[in-house]
Amino acid sequence: MARSPSPLTALPHIARLAPYTPGLQPGEAGWIKLNTNENPYPPSPRVAEALAREIGADGASLRLYPDPRSTRLREALGALHGVGAGGVFVGNGADDVLNLLVRAFAGPAAAAAFLVPSYSLYPVLIAIQDGRALPLEFDRTMQLPVDAIAGSPAQLCFLTSPNAPTGVGFRTADLATILQRFRGLLVVDETYAVFAREDATGLLAAHPNLCIVRTFSKSHGLAGLRAGYALAAPDVIALLDRVKDSYNVSRLTQAGALAALGDPAYYAGVVQRILATRDRFARCLAGLGWFAYPSQANFLFAEPRNRAGAAGPEVARAVYDHLVARKILVRHFGSHALTSSFLRISVGTDQEMDALQNTLEAWLRNG
Amino acid sequence: MARSPSPLTALPHIARLAPYTPGLQPGEAGWIKLNTNENPYPPSPRVAEALAREIGADGASLRLYPDPRSTRLREALGALHGVGAGGVFVGNGADDVLNLLVRAFAGPAAAAAFLVPSYSLYPVLIAIQDGRALPLEFDRTMQLPVDAIAGSPAQLCFLTSPNAPTGVGFRTADLATILQRFRGLLVVDETYAVFAREDATGLLAAHPNLCIVRTFSKSHGLAGLRAGYALAAPDVIALLDRVKDSYNVSRLTQAGALAALGDPAYYAGVVQRILATRDRFARCLAGLGWFAYPSQANFLFAEPRNRAGAAGPEVARAVYDHLVARKILVRHFGSHALTSSFLRISVGTDQEMDALQNTLEAWLRNG
Repeated sequence: MARSPSPLTALPHIARLAPYTPGLQPGEAGWIKLNTNENPYPPSPRVAEALAREIGADGASLRLYPDPRSTRLREALGALHGVGAGGVFVGNGADDVLNLLVRAFAGPAAAAAFLVPSYSLYPVLIAIQDGRALPLEFDRTMQLPVDAIAGSPAQLCFLTSPNAPTGVGFRTADLATILQRFRGLLVVDETYAVFAREDATGLLAAHPNLCIVRTFSKSHGLAGLRAGYALAAPDVIALLDRVKDSYNVSRLTQAGALAALGDPAYYAGVVQRILATRDRFARCLAGLGWFAYPSQANFLFAEPRNRAGAAGPEVARAVYDHLVARKILVRHFGSHALTSSFLRISVGTDQEMDALQNTLEAWLRNG
Repeated sequence: MARSPSPLTALPHIARLAPYTPGLQPGEAGWIKLNTNENPYPPSPRVAEALAREIGADGASLRLYPDPRSTRLREALGALHGVGAGGVFVGNGADDVLNLLVRAFAGPAAAAAFLVPSYSLYPVLIAIQDGRALPLEFDRTMQLPVDAIAGSPAQLCFLTSPNAPTGVGFRTADLATILQRFRGLLVVDETYAVFAREDATGLLAAHPNLCIVRTFSKSHGLAGLRAGYALAAPDVIALLDRVKDSYNVSRLTQAGALAALGDPAYYAGVVQRILATRDRFARCLAGLGWFAYPSQANFLFAEPRNRAGAAGPEVARAVYDHLVARKILVRHFGSHALTSSFLRISVGTDQEMDALQNTLEAWLRNG
């Protein structure tokens, strides 16, 4: 249908925005999908049972709005982390939580800092809010720039721990040092913390300027359900409650996430399997002669080398393309000097990683 | 656990915000719930079937992220409304869509208008964005102030049609007049349009400054699932895509909403039953001697009178309290002169409305 061009203009900062690009989600089957750090194992069987109960025979419960506060889920998370329900916020995925943090704390007159390279959504969320962005750069060691963060004038700082896409974990002691000196709210995005040696939850009681963000997507195999949460001082939680959508988390998401929390033994087993596969594949990469950062997450960040021993953006891209042609998806972040020579490879099943290894070895033989 | 008070301050406009108050969602059973305009009938049986298929035996599909664009749902909605998938945006409930419209079009330098009384979320969303708010007042006739809207300098204007809480429907011809003259984006919130005699979808082709917002919550009995959408010119849709969360709609919400769209005959029957009950209950209200606006929605906005024939905020509140004491929930909007003498009563099942009628008659006999 013919339409006349719209005379409307969006806000200038929206019009010039470079949106976030999520990893490919192929519609058809047959792919080995190692590009968005999903859990290779299904969620606890209790999730499907709880969803079936909530839906019932005819879906009648769905006609009613969900609990706007996700009360039972907050209570369960508060108990799990020893903070009480008043220290928990639940969102429609961790992205919803991150977005609301920006809306409550950042804007044209309130700067927001973030580490680079890290989750590339942070600067996009800040830009959507027309916020003043203060990037803080890692160097090639990918160690935490403690002094730069601690001395930042930002009102809000995003830090992923363990970091993505590198997988490097940070010491809780360093985070404590930052929290003592940084004057804004430090958001520690612990999307990958269940795969790490330590996490920052023990710092919550003493540091009211700490907000930890977590997700059910990776740890609980529930990326498709959209559940994330924040742990913070009750006054920070109250601010998130002021800016959230009234009914931000569906009935099914609340029921499914709650059921997942009820099966910690299952998930401990899943994490152990993923760590074993990760460490086995790390040895495979070392065997290929490829550098990878020591990972505390469910992925590896590896620097491919060709048969001649050369590395670089072109080599990384060549491997990426070779894998795509064989229906294996990994992630290549080509736009930053510290990431463009690397590929981020999610840890799949042993079978998937064996297929990847065979494909990489064939590329090396023939490339 | 003792916590020191947080030194953090939110943005000033967030700190002074008066948040939206959703209607009560009682946790326990036994209530006759006529306060949030939910559909009294379950969704199409196809919804529960589709959810069971998506979940599968073990929930394995949930480990993967959803389609970030809700492609199949956009295609189905585009076909339904004759606009094509490029003219459709899908959100985590209509509230998500309204919120994103504010983020793309309103701010301190870009005013947003809204009708009063209407859905009280609009000014809250504008305030969260620190937007300049331009309220436009109805008078007691609750007819559309066409000239005031058309002449507003706002870049964005929210209008609910049929309106809530009054239920009054507006003429498409009047909306066309506004669209020809208003220079911003007119958001026509058609949450209740399936219960009305006409809707504005026929205006989309000729008016690139029209955005229609709809929801599955009321019409499709899926308030608990969180699915809403916008119909607009592709450039408006593209702006919403820039500011949305990457994975804003869960796999289950996409699957359930799509299944609901596949069963129009079921929903036509549901709408007919609701309209028949509404019109029967409107006659009951007339029999009590209570004024109610002619409703084109799934609720009635009625002005209670006591045995002495008096109306007013105290009478409305007394009826509200009487009903709550008997576990019947309706909605009282006490803060505006045009609504404080009224109660908004959602249309439930015939049995629920009979129980309400008996309770009101008893109040009149004894009050």
